[in-house]
Parts: sequence; C-alpha cells; structure tokens
Amino acid sequence: MVGGGQLARMTHQAGISLGVDFRVLAASAGDSASLVTGGVTVGDERGAPDLLAFAKSCDVLTFDHEHVPEPVLRELEEAGAVLRPGRDALGFAQDKLRMRTRAEELGAPCPRWRAVTTASHVEAFADPAQGGTGWPVVLKAARGGYDGKGVWVVRDADEAAGVVARAAAAEVPLLVEELVAFERELAVQVARSPYGQIAVYPVVETVQRDGICHEVIAPAPGLDEDKAVRAQELAIELAHALGVVGMLAVELFETAGGVVVNELAMRPHNSGHWTMDGAVTSQFEQHLRAVLDLPLGAPRTTAPFTVMANVLGGTDPDVHGRYIHVMAKDPALKVHFYGKEVRPGRKIGHVNVAGDDYRDLLERARDAAAYLKGDQQ
Amino acid sequence: MVGGGQLARMTHQAGISLGVDFRVLAASAGDSASLVTGGVTVGDERGAPDLLAFAKSCDVLTFDHEHVPEPVLRELEEAGAVLRPGRDALGFAQDKLRMRTRAEELGAPCPRWRAVTTASHVEAFADPAQGGTGWPVVLKAARGGYDGKGVWVVRDADEAAGVVARAAAAEVPLLVEELVAFERELAVQVARSPYGQIAVYPVVETVQRDGICHEVIAPAPGLDEDKAVRAQELAIELAHALGVVGMLAVELFETAGGVVVNELAMRPHNSGHWTMDGAVTSQFEQHLRAVLDLPLGAPRTTAPFTVMANVLGGTDPDVHGRYIHVMAKDPALKVHFYGKEVRPGRKIGHVNVAGDDYRDLLERARDAAAYLKGDQQ
Repeated sequence: MVGGGQLARMTHQAGISLGVDFRVLAASAGDSASLVTGGVTVGDERGAPDLLAFAKSCDVLTFDHEHVPEPVLRELEEAGAVLRPGRDALGFAQDKLRMRTRAEELGAPCPRWRAVTTASHVEAFADPAQGGTGWPVVLKAARGGYDGKGVWVVRDADEAAGVVARAAAAEVPLLVEELVAFERELAVQVARSPYGQIAVYPVVETVQRDGICHEVIAPAPGLDEDKAVRAQELAIELAHALGVVGMLAVELFETAGGVVVNELAMRPHNSGHWTMDGAVTSQFEQHLRAVLDLPLGAPRTTAPFTVMANVLGGTDPDVHGRYIHVMAKDPALKVHFYGKEVRPGRKIGHVNVAGDDYRDLLERARDAAAYLKGDQQ
Repeated sequence: MVGGGQLARMTHQAGISLGVDFRVLAASAGDSASLVTGGVTVGDERGAPDLLAFAKSCDVLTFDHEHVPEPVLRELEEAGAVLRPGRDALGFAQDKLRMRTRAEELGAPCPRWRAVTTASHVEAFADPAQGGTGWPVVLKAARGGYDGKGVWVVRDADEAAGVVARAAAAEVPLLVEELVAFERELAVQVARSPYGQIAVYPVVETVQRDGICHEVIAPAPGLDEDKAVRAQELAIELAHALGVVGMLAVELFETAGGVVVNELAMRPHNSGHWTMDGAVTSQFEQHLRAVLDLPLGAPRTTAPFTVMANVLGGTDPDVHGRYIHVMAKDPALKVHFYGKEVRPGRKIGHVNVAGDDYRDLLERARDAAAYLKGDQQ
C-alpha cells in the first residue's frame, strides 16, 4: 500500500488474518502504518523512483490516498506494476471534473455544476437573473487545493473572485456547484474485484460539522427503502462504469427528491470505519480481498445499528489519561487509535459501538469522542 | 510479548486498535508474529541475557507460552521487569503438580491424581484391588515432556512402566490421573487485571480428536445453567487464587455430576479464538487490557453462536489455491492464517463463523477446515 496513514494501518491489521505479506511505502518511520507494520519502506510516496523500487517488491499496489500524480501512475503501469485501482479509475478520484462529467454521462443524479476559470463564470452560474442557482454556491478544487482546503462556500461575487484568484495563483483548477439543499448526508461503500464481483454495504448517515465527518450511523436510520436501494444501485453502477477495483465510497446528499452524488473515494474511507465492528467483513479486509482478486466477504451487518465517532485531537496531548476512563465507563465501546501525535483538530482515532438503539449508541460514541478530545470532563 | 507464535501475532493485531507499542521477542524473523510486527527482537526467548535486554525496552512483559524457566523469571523480576502474569502465577501454569495441589486446596473439583516416580505408584493408583481407579489411567508430565508429548493414556502396568522409564530418563516429573468418564469437554476464558477486575466469557464446548482441539462451539450448546455458572465461578476463583493477570483458560470435563478441572493456561488460548469474531472484546484485546492494567472490555457474545475450527496443515502446501474456494463458498466465514509454513498436522490457522444454528455453523467451519487442509475436494 502506498501511503502510511491510518487507512494503511487498519488495512494491515485486517491483512494479518488473511495471511497477506503486507508492505507499506510511507513518508516516515513514524507514520501511522509504519508503527505497526513489519514491511515498511520509507521513501517518497509520490515520486517515481521510490514507487518503482517499492513496486518491484509487491504483487499488487494499492493506495491509502489519491496523491500519486497521473504521470507517475503511468510510469508504474509501463514498468509492469499491477495498480488496483488502475490509473484510469484513479483519474476519476483525482479529478472532480472528470468524475462529474462521467457521472453525468451515466445519468447519475449530480448537483448542477460547471468548470470555472474566472469570477464571471461563477457569477453567471449563481446569478438568478442569468438563470443561475442563486447564492451561495460551492467552489471546489478539481484537483488538489490551496491553504489545505479544497472546498469553499461563497456568498457573493466578491467572495468568488477571491477564491478564483487564489486558486489561479496556486494553479488549482476549479468547478462551481450548486449548494444542495439536503436533508442529511449519506454514504455507501461498495467493493469491486478485478473479476467484477461486487459487494455493497448498507447506506449510512454521515454527520458532518465544519466540513469534517464527526459521526456515522449504520444503517442510516429511517431511510426510505427506495432511496436506499437507489443509493446502492448508484454505487454499483459507478464502481462498474469507473472500473474501480477495491473499495469505492460514494458520498451522497439526501434531498426531498432523492439522492444526489457528492464525492467519491477509491479506497477504504472514514464513512466505512463502522464496518470494523459492525459488519461481517470490514472495509479493510474487503479492500484487500478485492485488490488481491480474492472472493469478496459478506458485507452484512452484525448488529441492528453501529455508530462511529471520530476522535479529534484537543489541546491536551495526554489521551491515555482519559482513555482509561472511557474504557471503564463503556466496556462495549471499541476504540481504534492511529498512533498519531495529538494536534488540535487532527483525526487521531475513532470509536465504534454496536447495539439496538441508535440514539443511545450515538450519545455513547459522541461522549467518548468528546471525552477523548478533552472537551468534556 | 515473549514468544513469536500465533498468539503473539493475534495479540499484536488487537493491540493496533489500542494504540499499543507492541514488541515481540521471537526465536526467528520468520516466526508467525515476527512477520507482521514492526518491533521484533530476534533472540533466545527462554534465556536470561536476551530476555533481560528485551525487558529493558518494555513497560510490561507478557508471554505467548509457558516455557520461560522459573529461575529466568526470577532474574527478570529482580531486574525490575514487570511480568504479567507474574512468576508465582506462571508457576501454576508451568507445573501441573503445583496447579493440582493448589486447585484441590481451593476445593476445585479435580480428577483423582497423585505424583508418581515409579511404575508401582501408577499400579497402586490404578489397581482396583488396591482401591485404585481402574485402568486405563492418564500419565502427565508435570513440567515439559518428552518426544513432543506430555500426556499418555496407559492401559496396564507394562505400558505405565514404559512411560515412567522414559520420563525418568528425560528427567520429566510425572503425575497420574484417573481417566475421567466425561460427557464432553468444556472451557472457560476469564481475564483478570492487576487491579483485580474480572471479565468472564461464556462456557464453550471444545471438540478434541487425537489430543488436538479441532472445534469450539460458543456457547456450549444445551449446557445446564447451573453447570455453566459453576464453571464460570470456578474460573473466577482460580484466577483470583492463583493471582493471574491476563487471560486464564480453564479446560474442564463435563461429567454427569458436574464439571471437573482438566488444564489451565495463563494466556490467550485456542479455546478462545472464537472471541475474535463472536465477542465484543476478543481474548487478545482483553489480554492486553489486563496486562496493561486498563479497564476490561465487555466479554459478551455478538451472535447466538460462534464456531471455531482449527486449520491443520495437510500434505499439499498450496493453501492459497484452496483458500479462494473456501472464501467463495462461504463469504461469511472468517479465516485467520498464522503465516506458517504448511506441515502435516501443524496448526496453520483457524476459521470462525457466527450465526443462529450451531449445527449449521459447525458443518461450515468443519468443511472449510477440511478443505483448507486438502482432505476434501
């Protein structure tokens, strides 16, 4: 796996049971996955020389992020490396313009959007007098981003002009999207193997605050059966059409009229962490099965509901001192730490809890995450 | 953890979620745990020099086997190493004479037994004319064993004399026990922390053939409630009385009159592997929580039944070729491989499967194990 973050760490954890000889190319020996894996290569995980050397020691290359540049992926393929997902599929995950164009071709419901290079494009898109969506609108980096961000909600033409100018300076291509009036956010996980086998997980509700996923409820409580089936079908169609191999996470908006595609990721994803303690096959095991072309595992749930809450770092680095209180208070809570140094707002772990009553589970998961952060004493 | 076998491998796997900086002292870089762990020290896991050096890099030492000699454990304690379980507790796991003596003092139901040094001792124990139990009887090595064995069922005085002579030559102390007329074999897992907190798992049925555990059904189907409670109480009493820290496995015989203590192990144990996919907290996570003096996790089951079957090596080393068929046939089966080279009769992994109908689960687990061995096409 290319990249040594928490996704690689948890993929290795799952791979131990499968007997996989898991190796990781990580930026440092202190990375989340490097700390717990035997086969660690420290190197430049985005550059051709280190990736080519690493690929020689592996039967299959997969990725814990979307940051390997397309020309490097091409070099790897030309050198005979087996990339899963492949370069073409990864292109859709790396470039929102390509993804949106293809998703629309497939008839997938998407927000209204267009590529923009000037502030007047944004204004034309948004201005009701020109048939636009109305303000505010969402500007997104099609690739990369700047100042650590890739999404900006802009309320008027002036704000739009500021983002467009800074993006242009950073050579970041932009698109504009309507701000969808959603009821809630949903996500679906689907796995696809090279053989074309598909396994789809139940649709989950994701609770975002400040652009960060805070909690996931699996399955999404009270979701209309038709919408749930439509969301799963959409994920399956996208996985096939984009040629995904491995896990695909499809983030969706639930609106009064149905579901609308928001974002895609071609790897294990935060919205699927609940599967570690709530599904027969976790998304990490499933990703490995898929990229190794093994038969896929059952994606079904093992409890009526599972709730995941992300643990963010707070100002006090002593997680351990708080950790034992969380464990003592809720012996059924499953804690997953990433081995990361605590920094305010950084995802340092997550908790899962499974049971019958999602409101109770949500309260317990939130309490634990807040206590671990240090917000709550 | 001292010892690099599959128990250390699976303990590391559980420790990843807890954020534990897990290290292993293993006999070789090819050992089961060495293959998947970052912090591996290769050395003599029974000798003082390597153990003392390894202990300096650890806050707590625990064990994947009972083979560290008592004088070495003493040296480690004197050097300030924190052993969990401690030397006194490990003494009961290492020496069946000490264990039997102490268990009887506690009033735990045990088979009739005595220490023996001569064949005539065995004869006096067995001979009905001398008030004995009748033949056959069971001879056990109190410590160690010879020819790779530690238990012999002998049918008469001649057979007993042969075992006694070979044990004497190997300087192996012996005890003799009645051959218990059991209905089935049971086991109970209990965890105890230094603080004295206890968590006890449901009583399971273990199915042994040729002295090897083949399957475990959790919980033991149709077990009388009083017997189940008595077995759990026994395990708790033993854990407290022997000063266990970590997991204690108590193997029992179920007889018409009740339950009888057979063997103890102070570590994660084969009879508890079902907990990886059938309990909120696996025995491996629980062992780590206990030895690190963290609050214990909920030991409750996550399904009505979970069945475990050991995967033994067969004559054909190509497990992988068979593996994909097992995965395809039963997508809900959980396979756990130990990364070991296939040798006939060697435990190379196990499978777990959870559900409502233990007969169905048992058939599926047995089928998978037999297929992986290569016995069944």
